[in-house]
Amino acid sequence: MTEFIPPGTRWIDLPSPFTMKRGGELHGARVAYETWGRLAQDGGNAILIVTGLSPDAHAAASDDDPQPGWWEAMVGPGKPIDTDRWFVVCVNSLGSCKGSTGPASINPDTGRVYALDFPELSIEDGARAAAHVVDTLGIKRLACLIGNSMGGMTALALLAERPGIARGHINISGAARALPFSIAIRSLQREAIRLDPEWNGGNYGDEHYPESGMRMARKLGVITYRSALEWDGRFGRVRLDSDRADDEPFGLEFEVESYLEAHARRFIRRFDPNCYLYLSRSMDWFDIGEHCSSRCGDHDTDARAALAAIGAGGLEKAMAIGVHTDILFPLQQQEEIAEGLRAGGCDAAFLPLPSPQGHDAFLVDIDRFGPAVGGFLAEL
Amino acid sequence: MTEFIPPGTRWIDLPSPFTMKRGGELHGARVAYETWGRLAQDGGNAILIVTGLSPDAHAAASDDDPQPGWWEAMVGPGKPIDTDRWFVVCVNSLGSCKGSTGPASINPDTGRVYALDFPELSIEDGARAAAHVVDTLGIKRLACLIGNSMGGMTALALLAERPGIARGHINISGAARALPFSIAIRSLQREAIRLDPEWNGGNYGDEHYPESGMRMARKLGVITYRSALEWDGRFGRVRLDSDRADDEPFGLEFEVESYLEAHARRFIRRFDPNCYLYLSRSMDWFDIGEHCSSRCGDHDTDARAALAAIGAGGLEKAMAIGVHTDILFPLQQQEEIAEGLRAGGCDAAFLPLPSPQGHDAFLVDIDRFGPAVGGFLAEL
Repeated sequence: MTEFIPPGTRWIDLPSPFTMKRGGELHGARVAYETWGRLAQDGGNAILIVTGLSPDAHAAASDDDPQPGWWEAMVGPGKPIDTDRWFVVCVNSLGSCKGSTGPASINPDTGRVYALDFPELSIEDGARAAAHVVDTLGIKRLACLIGNSMGGMTALALLAERPGIARGHINISGAARALPFSIAIRSLQREAIRLDPEWNGGNYGDEHYPESGMRMARKLGVITYRSALEWDGRFGRVRLDSDRADDEPFGLEFEVESYLEAHARRFIRRFDPNCYLYLSRSMDWFDIGEHCSSRCGDHDTDARAALAAIGAGGLEKAMAIGVHTDILFPLQQQEEIAEGLRAGGCDAAFLPLPSPQGHDAFLVDIDRFGPAVGGFLAEL
Repeated sequence: MTEFIPPGTRWIDLPSPFTMKRGGELHGARVAYETWGRLAQDGGNAILIVTGLSPDAHAAASDDDPQPGWWEAMVGPGKPIDTDRWFVVCVNSLGSCKGSTGPASINPDTGRVYALDFPELSIEDGARAAAHVVDTLGIKRLACLIGNSMGGMTALALLAERPGIARGHINISGAARALPFSIAIRSLQREAIRLDPEWNGGNYGDEHYPESGMRMARKLGVITYRSALEWDGRFGRVRLDSDRADDEPFGLEFEVESYLEAHARRFIRRFDPNCYLYLSRSMDWFDIGEHCSSRCGDHDTDARAALAAIGAGGLEKAMAIGVHTDILFPLQQQEEIAEGLRAGGCDAAFLPLPSPQGHDAFLVDIDRFGPAVGGFLAEL
């Protein structure tokens, strides 16, 4: 998988051992990251971006890697996250296969790939790994912590574990805990991978790779990342030309099926199946309520109290952004974040956007997300 | 599969050959049905129910089969579809494995199961088969035609092909054509079955049955049949007791996962995979716009024109019911049906219901659907 680590990637070693939340520890683990802009002498202009499940640390082009990044329209000189003003850091999640240590890495204790010997991964582990990058880069306090999707969970975990680590926070299409619809979707994605005989209990290789399972998982992902509304206008009932249609019984016939297939092809063999399983499950496990200092056992109450504690813990200004058409991290979840932070005294806004593109809107609807993010940062 | 045909099932032979819309013909095919109540001497009290993908003809208990049916709360003496007043017929869809001829039936030309030798199945074929049942039972004109889900498509096809066959029509969580989100979901369900090595190009048996593929397909179905809102309240983040949790890596842990698993177990080996593929694809293909007599090629325009023609073709009163939380057949699709019928002069109402249960609400939210259906029938 090493060929899919962007060439501009840098690494920071984690403390060894690095103790994991649910038990076990990592030895010689490291976190991949990239940076843009310059850290001001007072260290006050740093922004950290924590990502969704699949992105690497290459959020945008840089001198070391001029290829466009996954958030190219958002990060750069004069862009909404303006690298002329801000020193921007993006980390690849712990547990990923895009540079940071994860289940596809070599286990130094055995000399073989971890596979399922990797310890259980929690969102909190990724948050603590990201915090170590912040510390190592000499950033005393982040001006802003930005988390997208799974990264929205990581950001909340980081704020809960390290009060005061950020002055501002933008939570984009994130959630304070996983709810059953998204758990069900992710559980089914994992089941597709696990059912693929080539997965083989996590022991596969380039020659035996669970391609069918990953294809199913990715297609189901793409279905839940976008929205029916967008697809009605984009694909309608348009059929494939006869030369692109599929001769297999029940094969591809509609444009929307071809679109899913193309997405799946770009993903399989570029993402490690075990890393996918670990990261996916970490989202199901995440519940900010576990960080509540006086847990009462009621999930809603504990989540609100934990968010209020974050809002009272040195976070000055926050914004939770979501879109109406997101079925995976629905709008109520961003509203819950903003309300919870506000209950703790933080100046926290809830910004629902009318993007048709669903959960992935922050990647593509820059017309709406650009001004929202840029405006927040301008007032910091 | 014969053991899963309800004991009260009756059959009506289709004309032989029965010509299929997309080519090919069936010989010696038949349709399974059940009835409740008595046909009035003037024949004016007949109601036909056409179903979703999976139900059999046993909508409710009867003298021949006292087991509760799939719409038990809705059909019976004194119930919303009151069998003291109405003569109710429910047909099992052509192409199903619950009694009607389908891919799991014996092909009389070869003496073997049809499997993929079954001709391509369209919603219109199911509609024409249902119309033959109506004719054979001596029903000159239906008082009301009721179609749920896929049955909503079947009902529209029937009304388009046989103008005047019904005086009233209730379309429940139906659609005038398949849109890309539902096509994507069904395509992925079919892919899960096709990818299962045990499917074997449609040639399986009781010993080699594509259980994994059917499990995936059914779970994805259940996810899209219900709603996130319902599950938030019903399952939240509740975990399984340790004795019910799964020891497999990445196995079941949350209640919602166990719920999906239980649904899948009740479905697999009780539904024929090839029948599933054929019926599922017939929904993707369905577009009422193909029935427009002056097709312009624009899907929206043609669909509206075809619906208006139905509304002008002897249908007196109609109602399209849907629910806000349906992601598979979203509310706009029922609104489109009502508006289209109304444009043709039919007295057609659109009734959006605030059920939290999603697409399947008509099966469970009898408190809302009962009065809606009963009220419509009372005014007929």
